[in-house]
Amino acid sequence: MATAGRELGALGWTPATSSNFSMRVDSAHAAVTISGRDKGRLGIDDIMVVDLDGHAVGTTARPSAETALHTQIYRRFADAGAVLHTHSRAQSVASRLYAAQGLVRFEGWELQKAIAGYTTHESVLDLPVFPNTQDMHVLVRQVDAWLDAGKPLHGYLIDGHGIYTWGRDMPETRRHLEAFEFLLNCELDLLRLKGTAS
Amino acid sequence: MATAGRELGALGWTPATSSNFSMRVDSAHAAVTISGRDKGRLGIDDIMVVDLDGHAVGTTARPSAETALHTQIYRRFADAGAVLHTHSRAQSVASRLYAAQGLVRFEGWELQKAIAGYTTHESVLDLPVFPNTQDMHVLVRQVDAWLDAGKPLHGYLIDGHGIYTWGRDMPETRRHLEAFEFLLNCELDLLRLKGTAS
Amino acid sequence: MATAGRELGALGWTPATSSNFSMRVDSAHAAVTISGRDKGRLGIDDIMVVDLDGHAVGTTARPSAETALHTQIYRRFADAGAVLHTHSRAQSVASRLYAAQGLVRFEGWELQKAIAGYTTHESVLDLPVFPNTQDMHVLVRQVDAWLDAGKPLHGYLIDGHGIYTWGRDMPETRRHLEAFEFLLNCELDLLRLKGTAS
Amino acid sequence: MATAGRELGALGWTPATSSNFSMRVDSAHAAVTISGRDKGRLGIDDIMVVDLDGHAVGTTARPSAETALHTQIYRRFADAGAVLHTHSRAQSVASRLYAAQGLVRFEGWELQKAIAGYTTHESVLDLPVFPNTQDMHVLVRQVDAWLDAGKPLHGYLIDGHGIYTWGRDMPETRRHLEAFEFLLNCELDLLRLKGTAS
Repeated sequence: MATAGRELGALGWTPATSSNFSMRVDSAHAAVTISGRDKGRLGIDDIMVVDLDGHAVGTTARPSAETALHTQIYRRFADAGAVLHTHSRAQSVASRLYAAQGLVRFEGWELQKAIAGYTTHESVLDLPVFPNTQDMHVLVRQVDAWLDAGKPLHGYLIDGHGIYTWGRDMPETRRHLEAFEFLLNCELDLLRLKGTAS
Repeated sequence: MATAGRELGALGWTPATSSNFSMRVDSAHAAVTISGRDKGRLGIDDIMVVDLDGHAVGTTARPSAETALHTQIYRRFADAGAVLHTHSRAQSVASRLYAAQGLVRFEGWELQKAIAGYTTHESVLDLPVFPNTQDMHVLVRQVDAWLDAGKPLHGYLIDGHGIYTWGRDMPETRRHLEAFEFLLNCELDLLRLKGTAS
Repeated sequence: MATAGRELGALGWTPATSSNFSMRVDSAHAAVTISGRDKGRLGIDDIMVVDLDGHAVGTTARPSAETALHTQIYRRFADAGAVLHTHSRAQSVASRLYAAQGLVRFEGWELQKAIAGYTTHESVLDLPVFPNTQDMHVLVRQVDAWLDAGKPLHGYLIDGHGIYTWGRDMPETRRHLEAFEFLLNCELDLLRLKGTAS
Repeated sequence: MATAGRELGALGWTPATSSNFSMRVDSAHAAVTISGRDKGRLGIDDIMVVDLDGHAVGTTARPSAETALHTQIYRRFADAGAVLHTHSRAQSVASRLYAAQGLVRFEGWELQKAIAGYTTHESVLDLPVFPNTQDMHVLVRQVDAWLDAGKPLHGYLIDGHGIYTWGRDMPETRRHLEAFEFLLNCELDLLRLKGTAS
């Protein structure tokens, strides 16, 4: 997690102490970053253990409000081993632009194959955009509703905020994050150049 | 200050020996960078002490004209511990674009919460743009007038020039600077993509 | 190849484990990167030897499907010593924008002289864009058809995907890659600024 | 020169072995980089001495054609101590966009003060754009004509190519280069955002 933080921080994806990261510890626990720390300089004291309801374990530190979004992923995806939440410029700007239509749709990009389970560019990859709120329960219900409707989900944007994505382990999660960041930048470039999305 | 200079210089926010930084020493003094030095390679000889009227203390070196804008912040904000003035491309370009309307208004961005006192994206954060002048007294009066009108102030742009921002200590000041830089870039991106600000 | 991978990875041209590289071993063999590895951290185990029909030599590892595009270059160009395939944002975006017209045409850029055989900016440099397909045989036939028509070829884009380019050795190949990347970025900038290509 | 090369190369201003640098040795000689070398990795063997007519001194190496543009600066400006020629994307794109009007005019930017002799943003700074040609004599005559007309000159663009700028010593020359690069990027940003130059 410290390595991910340092490398993602160097890319400018965690501005102003925003963003948070987690990894699954076992079937009932995860380790998450503590709110407000500089994600480019994470040490052992910047990380705490929570159960999958988001309650702190073995510490008096209070988990950040956004912890609920991490533990939801571990509850809903039995094979999820890591969750990354970042705030890059492309993620923030795209979330504002696509908020009204509720999702960014990727089609025809070879890099869609970087998402687990995708084997061809001739596929459709949807990244939903949920409205932002300071009430995490509302966000959790929005994500649950999407999943309960049986729609595939590999990550999501929150309007004006950033992205959540996950994978089996940290390398797959970083691959997913890099792929979404790349695809969002490409879509924004096409919008600027064509005046309309691809 | 040397660390801030090296890291901000590496980001390209202090081009061509521009920019200056300061930190409060005590209730009546501040340490400021000397004009014209490479901000990416600051040493102890590139920094001098001034009183809060901007007069040099214990040195024959002449403080830069812009020192008056630093000491004004320490006089007006008792809890300000550091001031950063940088010249990034987004800061310079946004200052030109928003000069006519006198401010950049941020609404709906999660990163507004990076500014001290902001707890929700459902808030309004104004960054004023003051006209540029080589006469620092005029700039000081513009800032005083804004504050005397009772309007909140966490930083300001000068047209065609750059940003001033501050905080309790250097880490908070850098968080504010990173947040404003990020938000300005996002607003410029939205302008390019939508043809109108958010 | 490891150096090229590390340096190109740092530029963001190999997102999400995409891209692959090769070098000629002798008149009948080439060394190629194995699919799915992080191109910024290549070791000896991430590289395998194939013959010029793309069959593995001295290993049970399976070469990536795209290996056929590398060996085609070594078959068709007797003096080709290295092939680089990358996925930068400019390469991906330009491939989408110019797919309909089938090529990007560069004229009037001094940097055209970075391509072997070009001695003046008063020349025409065409970079074809081929449709993307997961069937490498189709791609190989498209490249063969271009060459069989006697048209000059120093590199090509695949729609929504990335670039292939080559040279006598790795330094010339990297020079070609840097030149195409630079020229594509310049053309996209002019499109954004003028609303039409140069 | 090696330090300048390494640092400017890292910024991407010397793509594909383009660009060249020089420093004055004495009133009659200059040291210049040899054509075609990677400017990010300059060693002593990549630099040669020429007289101010551009003839090699103490070596059988042939100076690059562009050497004539460097020695012209040392002949015309007695206090010039260094010349930098780079090919950044902003320099190349701006040279194409402003070629028809023959110059880029900067007004109202605080960073104009980074150019020697400028003390206020309320000034006009012109950067001429000369047509590109592979015949250096033509380029030399264009620069001579501008100077003979008594117009101030601190640098110039060549269409589709890059910038030349100079100063008393390498630090001042780099400050000039950084300032022009910054100002060109700002003007291009304003063009994109406003549809018209500042």
